[in-house]
Amino acid sequence: MADFNTIAKQFVDFYYSTFSTNRSGLKALYRDHSMLTFEGSPIQGSTAIAEKLEGLPFQKVQHKVTTLDAQPSSPTIASLLVSVTGLLVVDDGENPLNFSQVFQLIPEGGSYYVFNDIFRLNYG
Amino acid sequence: MADFNTIAKQFVDFYYSTFSTNRSGLKALYRDHSMLTFEGSPIQGSTAIAEKLEGLPFQKVQHKVTTLDAQPSSPTIASLLVSVTGLLVVDDGENPLNFSQVFQLIPEGGSYYVFNDIFRLNYG
Repeated sequence: MADFNTIAKQFVDFYYSTFSTNRSGLKALYRDHSMLTFEGSPIQGSTAIAEKLEGLPFQKVQHKVTTLDAQPSSPTIASLLVSVTGLLVVDDGENPLNFSQVFQLIPEGGSYYVFNDIFRLNYG
Repeated sequence: MADFNTIAKQFVDFYYSTFSTNRSGLKALYRDHSMLTFEGSPIQGSTAIAEKLEGLPFQKVQHKVTTLDAQPSSPTIASLLVSVTGLLVVDDGENPLNFSQVFQLIPEGGSYYVFNDIFRLNYG
């Protein structure tokens, strides 16, 4: 089995690539008890989370990952904490925004789903 | 019992105030299986984590919290995921640095300890 850093990297690559090319595909990564806190607003459940992400008001978006850190998040199950910082490039804008995002991934049937997701823009 | 946002706020206030005024007191917040990833370097255990934090090469440090988000991190125990972004002011410097920090707090005997800790400076 891949180590947790490799799994975190694969997840983050897949998540942001899906965000750019097929945003509605993100819904499958969440469950009914999943939580997203987006710029301070709490949202629960895959349906509401997908509506939020799909409704974000930009056509093109790219997440450029600057740092990626991962740790096991439980002594008993193979869950992972993943922390990302990077740049958000929206609609080919020339002024990318710094962002921070944290995921907790829970193993399920040979893959993982997102239980926790916290997203913030960082205005310096 | 206080709600998770209140607990997260109390923890973060206590953590950064202890960091500024009594850095060696942070050791009591970690356990032998606790993890810190500091600027990409993984460190495990309260003794090694305390050595790292106490050895950081600045005399005065202040964390100014800009955003604080929290979520329950487990369906079964009252653990918390806490994500912080803010400004790090070192030795009264005039150019504070943006930072991101993530904690997972685990309940223990009426209080909490830090199981996961990921710290990153964000260079914009």
